[in-house]
Amino acid sequence: MARLPDPQHELFVRLNSSLRFDRRLAPYDIRGSRAHASALVGAGVLSDAELEKILEGLDAVEQEFARGGFPFADDDEDIHMAIERRLIELAGPVAGKLHTGRSRNDQVATDLAMFVADHAVRGSELIAALLERLLALAERYAGWAMPGYTHLQRAQPVYLGHHLLAWFWMLRRDAGRFAAAGAAAGEMPLGSGALAGVNWELDRAGVAAELGFTSVSPNSLDAVSNRDFALDYLSAATVCAAHLSRIGAEIVIWSSQEFGFCEPAANFASGSSLMPQKKNPDAAELLRAKAPRIASAFSTLTGVLHGLPLAYSKDLQEDKEPLFDAVDNLELSLEAAEVLVSGLSFDRERLAEAAADELLAATDVADLLVRKGMPFREAHGVVGALVRKALDTDRALSELTREEIAGFSELLDDEYYETLGDGQWLESKRSVGGTSSARLAEQLDAARSSLRALTA
Amino acid sequence: MARLPDPQHELFVRLNSSLRFDRRLAPYDIRGSRAHASALVGAGVLSDAELEKILEGLDAVEQEFARGGFPFADDDEDIHMAIERRLIELAGPVAGKLHTGRSRNDQVATDLAMFVADHAVRGSELIAALLERLLALAERYAGWAMPGYTHLQRAQPVYLGHHLLAWFWMLRRDAGRFAAAGAAAGEMPLGSGALAGVNWELDRAGVAAELGFTSVSPNSLDAVSNRDFALDYLSAATVCAAHLSRIGAEIVIWSSQEFGFCEPAANFASGSSLMPQKKNPDAAELLRAKAPRIASAFSTLTGVLHGLPLAYSKDLQEDKEPLFDAVDNLELSLEAAEVLVSGLSFDRERLAEAAADELLAATDVADLLVRKGMPFREAHGVVGALVRKALDTDRALSELTREEIAGFSELLDDEYYETLGDGQWLESKRSVGGTSSARLAEQLDAARSSLRALTA
Amino acid sequence: MARLPDPQHELFVRLNSSLRFDRRLAPYDIRGSRAHASALVGAGVLSDAELEKILEGLDAVEQEFARGGFPFADDDEDIHMAIERRLIELAGPVAGKLHTGRSRNDQVATDLAMFVADHAVRGSELIAALLERLLALAERYAGWAMPGYTHLQRAQPVYLGHHLLAWFWMLRRDAGRFAAAGAAAGEMPLGSGALAGVNWELDRAGVAAELGFTSVSPNSLDAVSNRDFALDYLSAATVCAAHLSRIGAEIVIWSSQEFGFCEPAANFASGSSLMPQKKNPDAAELLRAKAPRIASAFSTLTGVLHGLPLAYSKDLQEDKEPLFDAVDNLELSLEAAEVLVSGLSFDRERLAEAAADELLAATDVADLLVRKGMPFREAHGVVGALVRKALDTDRALSELTREEIAGFSELLDDEYYETLGDGQWLESKRSVGGTSSARLAEQLDAARSSLRALTA
Amino acid sequence: MARLPDPQHELFVRLNSSLRFDRRLAPYDIRGSRAHASALVGAGVLSDAELEKILEGLDAVEQEFARGGFPFADDDEDIHMAIERRLIELAGPVAGKLHTGRSRNDQVATDLAMFVADHAVRGSELIAALLERLLALAERYAGWAMPGYTHLQRAQPVYLGHHLLAWFWMLRRDAGRFAAAGAAAGEMPLGSGALAGVNWELDRAGVAAELGFTSVSPNSLDAVSNRDFALDYLSAATVCAAHLSRIGAEIVIWSSQEFGFCEPAANFASGSSLMPQKKNPDAAELLRAKAPRIASAFSTLTGVLHGLPLAYSKDLQEDKEPLFDAVDNLELSLEAAEVLVSGLSFDRERLAEAAADELLAATDVADLLVRKGMPFREAHGVVGALVRKALDTDRALSELTREEIAGFSELLDDEYYETLGDGQWLESKRSVGGTSSARLAEQLDAARSSLRALTA
Repeated sequence: MARLPDPQHELFVRLNSSLRFDRRLAPYDIRGSRAHASALVGAGVLSDAELEKILEGLDAVEQEFARGGFPFADDDEDIHMAIERRLIELAGPVAGKLHTGRSRNDQVATDLAMFVADHAVRGSELIAALLERLLALAERYAGWAMPGYTHLQRAQPVYLGHHLLAWFWMLRRDAGRFAAAGAAAGEMPLGSGALAGVNWELDRAGVAAELGFTSVSPNSLDAVSNRDFALDYLSAATVCAAHLSRIGAEIVIWSSQEFGFCEPAANFASGSSLMPQKKNPDAAELLRAKAPRIASAFSTLTGVLHGLPLAYSKDLQEDKEPLFDAVDNLELSLEAAEVLVSGLSFDRERLAEAAADELLAATDVADLLVRKGMPFREAHGVVGALVRKALDTDRALSELTREEIAGFSELLDDEYYETLGDGQWLESKRSVGGTSSARLAEQLDAARSSLRALTA
Repeated sequence: MARLPDPQHELFVRLNSSLRFDRRLAPYDIRGSRAHASALVGAGVLSDAELEKILEGLDAVEQEFARGGFPFADDDEDIHMAIERRLIELAGPVAGKLHTGRSRNDQVATDLAMFVADHAVRGSELIAALLERLLALAERYAGWAMPGYTHLQRAQPVYLGHHLLAWFWMLRRDAGRFAAAGAAAGEMPLGSGALAGVNWELDRAGVAAELGFTSVSPNSLDAVSNRDFALDYLSAATVCAAHLSRIGAEIVIWSSQEFGFCEPAANFASGSSLMPQKKNPDAAELLRAKAPRIASAFSTLTGVLHGLPLAYSKDLQEDKEPLFDAVDNLELSLEAAEVLVSGLSFDRERLAEAAADELLAATDVADLLVRKGMPFREAHGVVGALVRKALDTDRALSELTREEIAGFSELLDDEYYETLGDGQWLESKRSVGGTSSARLAEQLDAARSSLRALTA
Repeated sequence: MARLPDPQHELFVRLNSSLRFDRRLAPYDIRGSRAHASALVGAGVLSDAELEKILEGLDAVEQEFARGGFPFADDDEDIHMAIERRLIELAGPVAGKLHTGRSRNDQVATDLAMFVADHAVRGSELIAALLERLLALAERYAGWAMPGYTHLQRAQPVYLGHHLLAWFWMLRRDAGRFAAAGAAAGEMPLGSGALAGVNWELDRAGVAAELGFTSVSPNSLDAVSNRDFALDYLSAATVCAAHLSRIGAEIVIWSSQEFGFCEPAANFASGSSLMPQKKNPDAAELLRAKAPRIASAFSTLTGVLHGLPLAYSKDLQEDKEPLFDAVDNLELSLEAAEVLVSGLSFDRERLAEAAADELLAATDVADLLVRKGMPFREAHGVVGALVRKALDTDRALSELTREEIAGFSELLDDEYYETLGDGQWLESKRSVGGTSSARLAEQLDAARSSLRALTA
Repeated sequence: MARLPDPQHELFVRLNSSLRFDRRLAPYDIRGSRAHASALVGAGVLSDAELEKILEGLDAVEQEFARGGFPFADDDEDIHMAIERRLIELAGPVAGKLHTGRSRNDQVATDLAMFVADHAVRGSELIAALLERLLALAERYAGWAMPGYTHLQRAQPVYLGHHLLAWFWMLRRDAGRFAAAGAAAGEMPLGSGALAGVNWELDRAGVAAELGFTSVSPNSLDAVSNRDFALDYLSAATVCAAHLSRIGAEIVIWSSQEFGFCEPAANFASGSSLMPQKKNPDAAELLRAKAPRIASAFSTLTGVLHGLPLAYSKDLQEDKEPLFDAVDNLELSLEAAEVLVSGLSFDRERLAEAAADELLAATDVADLLVRKGMPFREAHGVVGALVRKALDTDRALSELTREEIAGFSELLDDEYYETLGDGQWLESKRSVGGTSSARLAEQLDAARSSLRALTA
């Protein structure tokens, strides 16, 4: 930069340089440069021979990266300048023509959009793999009873398969969010120049097609200022990570000795440095613990954009590290979640025993009264009183006598004991989306179709 | 609740009661109750006559709310219990049947989804109105030159209409996010009961259709735990608010005496209690300042969901206040933004004068050298040196002599002065999406179509 | 404001007016006005008689607020203007002299600092009350064994009193943070004017003393821009709320049927609208759920300050609502926490049974080997193998035979069974801060002293 | 870990291993191990000879780290196990005794507390250096007039030195926060074991003294769960970064061509890849842009702690990366800020010209009327009307005629012109903390003392 003297202050370089992290964009930068070079031929800036030389140079650079042998220079400020500098070394001064009609502002936005588009797809794929596993588990455990909880209190029994499908649907929605982020990243900024457009008629549509974009940005100022696609990815990741944190938290609780519902696979747990007996569900804890970090990446980027005037400001350099960190942690979490849930061994007996808690039938008893004509609100009160009686006298509901129950309502008769005794409190949940076997079978079908639609 | 004694501890009531804020959901709760009551007829729980009585009671309750005369009771715990309690007072014990096959867990999720769906539409409408205004302004100011900035340094000139369209496209994307949030809120939770489904075959699809939902939730556990639709609304609102904060920040800067580019309307500004000369762009500042608050609503809700086991937990009660606060502040901001931008008076002369800064033509001079065959990277260096020369000798670029410029490159000749002199630095930005008049005209067309598609 | 015409646009008023929430500062504003009026006498602006009239007027205004009868006017923009307007109505034109040498900028900063100082004290008091209760409970439960957990897996037994003291110390640290916030709020902004100081020599030190400040702000620009004291309060509140969320989460888990360690008081729990048997630990859940909201208040204010130029900007108006919301929710949480923990009933048998799990003695067995000369790392391996053997053969550690244990290490002999049998795994934790009774007694003493120092 | 089989799943290792980042704690871990080894002698676990061997081994390990030659092994799970593993290789089986009476839970908390304590000091030192520079600049520019702003509108003139001191005081407060964080990190967790204390009477106070702690943690459960010291550091860093973001934002605005108040040093600015004329204030932009990232570190850690049961959970492993990232970015920002502000060149003429804007004297004119007996509120109205008159007729205030001004108030006479003409609008701000030269001199003294107190 001839206007400014060399060298820059060492601290400025440390603060300003993005090479430490943006080198990750090298493959996208090279692809973008290839496409831009072709467009420069169309615009009359490059001859075919010059294009050839530049493309050869870019191939060489690409191979250096692939081999891990790209020679960074001390004063490379960012990946874009590093590649251009190296290209000039390899291809000669003609490579100095490559930056015609291009700015780092539209270049970096383009690189980042390609990165986001790729990882939006990757996110979807990892979710699909996890969904597949959850679906298989839900089928396997379709008939295993367990307690369902509200407020972490036993509420009503459900099938384990039903519970696992609750996880399925949460994550299924996330796939839709990643698709939206991918679509948002489909608009190519390249050709917007520094902010105002460029002095050349480049075939932007052709470049976009070559790079896999679906359209070109309609406004140059917006194009270089815009990081919405990254925000879309990050909000999708944030919600997905929140879902994983809920799944992780449930596995942690279910793995406690007190619940004893499941255990992680031995090769997916860890011990203690001090306590030889420990088998800790670390992976589940980390699924839980990654969520705030991923959410913070979204917060960071919205914070960076807060009150930021158009067009490009250096602040936007702070978009990459949170994004990369979120991508890496989310993808690792999704991969790990798949293996974690696959390896869980559930304890059918413990689950069934907990689900057999008669108090879980309280709603069924209330509904029995409703069927006999009592308004629900009244029935709720009657059963509440029955429950209190049972607890106060330390008995099960079915241990209350005929006389006792009739004292609470004349409508209570032998059917009361039948309701408590038949263990049909799961099958009675026969509304659409309920846990009864028939509904669960329908739901498994729906999940299968939905997954098929995702992976088609 | 007969199991638990009355009364609850006063502090528990203060902590636990949501009536202070969830009363806002009353209209949705009443609509939901109407539809649920009809479904109970289908399920054989209510007779037609009972339905009639309940619907009359709900009408009466609705009117009490409409009049502001709904009589809350001291021990109303939330809006659902308040309405049911009042309904029983008005319609008699039969109203006690209404809660059959329903839980507050699915009820509140349904109310909230309806609320979100409504405000997703409202968000889109307000954006559309703002877009309309921006488009009109962009047309009006299509030919007004101003400096474009990067790093808040003058970079290249653009048309004010082009800049206003950058705002247009940012907000246009937000409309898509609200549409997605609306779609997410289109799945009806009602019929999921407390967590496991209900003991009655309710016509969920019919209820959904009556309430304007597009489908029913496939899994009861997920349905009562899920707040994704609220997260989707909040992330849309967060990004939209970030956009408004950027617009607000630009107006604040442009309104400073030093920039002097624009002034808010006198009835959209405020003075100082101490300094009589002040005219402050408060509205623009508040557009900027609202963004962190709205972003925090998203953070709050993701935080609440962090590690939260299924199904319903009381924590979910903390979903409403951040959501309501975000809705109110975003909608007010969008409304205010429309009036604010409409009332801005721009100073054409100040803008033009700033845009005439010859340094803004530096890229054009570099591109001149490129057209004469010099690689851009080299041309960039030559022009950088010219700029330094001009600054060091306190002259404009066009005040450098023929000899001087030739000393920097033999390619520099009279065309150099022509480039600087013709003021065509805007028209030269002729790439798609660039600021040149022809491209801007295309862009205005595209914006018009895009807006039409939104409001169709 | 004679420079600007009336009336302002209705939307501007809605966006700009802070009266809806800043009326809460009225008592502080009145106190500040009294002190400022006295200072104006010293500066020669007011006569004693004028002061008298103004003070009488302020008394009248104060009484109107106290009675809830303060007559707000439609165009009151904020609480400062409302009070001044009303004062002029009550005391006549002389009250128009009160705003001499004062700006809303220093006025609102002063009001807010007083508010923060008060609530920093209040926070400390509420914490002290909660600490007192925890200490009493810790004493009561000093000898009740329970399992200690890591990774929510049983790890080593502790006394319940020890666990409750862990809560004590967390909250004790919070008291220190509130003290720091109070100190930060002790610097009076009043007298800084709009930003540059004022044209009068006011006795700032005297005013500060009258209002309970400890010093005056040294720089007028900083004084009106500064909201650090609010940030300090909010970060203290955030950390305190995080602590409460951990306590709440533990109570939720402990209250589950599976753990069965404790139950909330009946008047501090709630039931279900559908399931008559439920007794939900709502208060504990809400202690947990309030934390993200309070943390978001801190985020909001740091977000508002992000990149905000000095001195006062309207953005600062967005400081109050998050602060007020955090104050109210934190104080309510602290109050509720005290009653919640006081009312918990613990189940000594369940706790003891869980603590008797022999696996919790694994570290003690390893340490036995260490005492016999084996390096700990090796001993850890030996005991790990013993544990695996026991689990694989479905026996307790003490059910392994002499031959079997000797097969793992020759050092294992009868002492092995003694270690497992003596139930001394709590008393063996005799390091400072450990759970053994002697250390716990020391700790109770330390807690008592620490609490005394706080409340002194 | 003999209970669990080897090897762990590759994905588990990737998720679980912290070695990638916690290796940074190696120096602290080694220091901690030295002190712990000594304590084991006191407890009779190690002989003097064994201690000797372990210390020699630790020295060797330390040197390997210092040389960058520490040989990590594939299955090192974290820095603690890596060092212990290596120590055993170097010092033999005796090193297996080192983990007696210690857990990774108290070990990592101790390492981290030492890290925080060091960086709390470092933060203070960097702030002190920056304060020193700001103070020197404030002295240099004590007499340079510039406009002070509210709402980014010119409000009243101030001295540049006064403005720079506003920055001084903001940062001065941050030093206090770092001191508090350092104090919070002064309580040693070591000796708390996994959660319950250890089976050995270790001289914790002695260890603490050796490691530079001021006290030992009073409760073992709390000690391994507690990350408050890290939160304290992070909230200090968040507030400090917010301050830097305000400073950065002001420099960006002041560096714009429109303000033209200052320019960064040439070696502390950067150019554009496309536009040869650009000199961008990147460092100032990055000071601004780092704040959300640092704030997010605090959010991440509070999020991780949200609802986390005691004692240690794996989630706590997510404490380190946000902390390290915040430390690195804050320290770099502080260092860079010092050089940035030192290198700013201010344009005295531009500043003075902007400060001479007569409208900035409006308050002085109002105060003139007050001195003549008019209540301020009325005077404010009169001057507002004068300002409107001047603006409407496109004149300066001093260009209004005697007749005109008398028309607004009979009290306006020649003194009006004197007030406008004497340029004493800075010197008139003579309240404590105001910008007048005498007050500024006092303030410089106070700043000097305050800085001395910090660096003493």
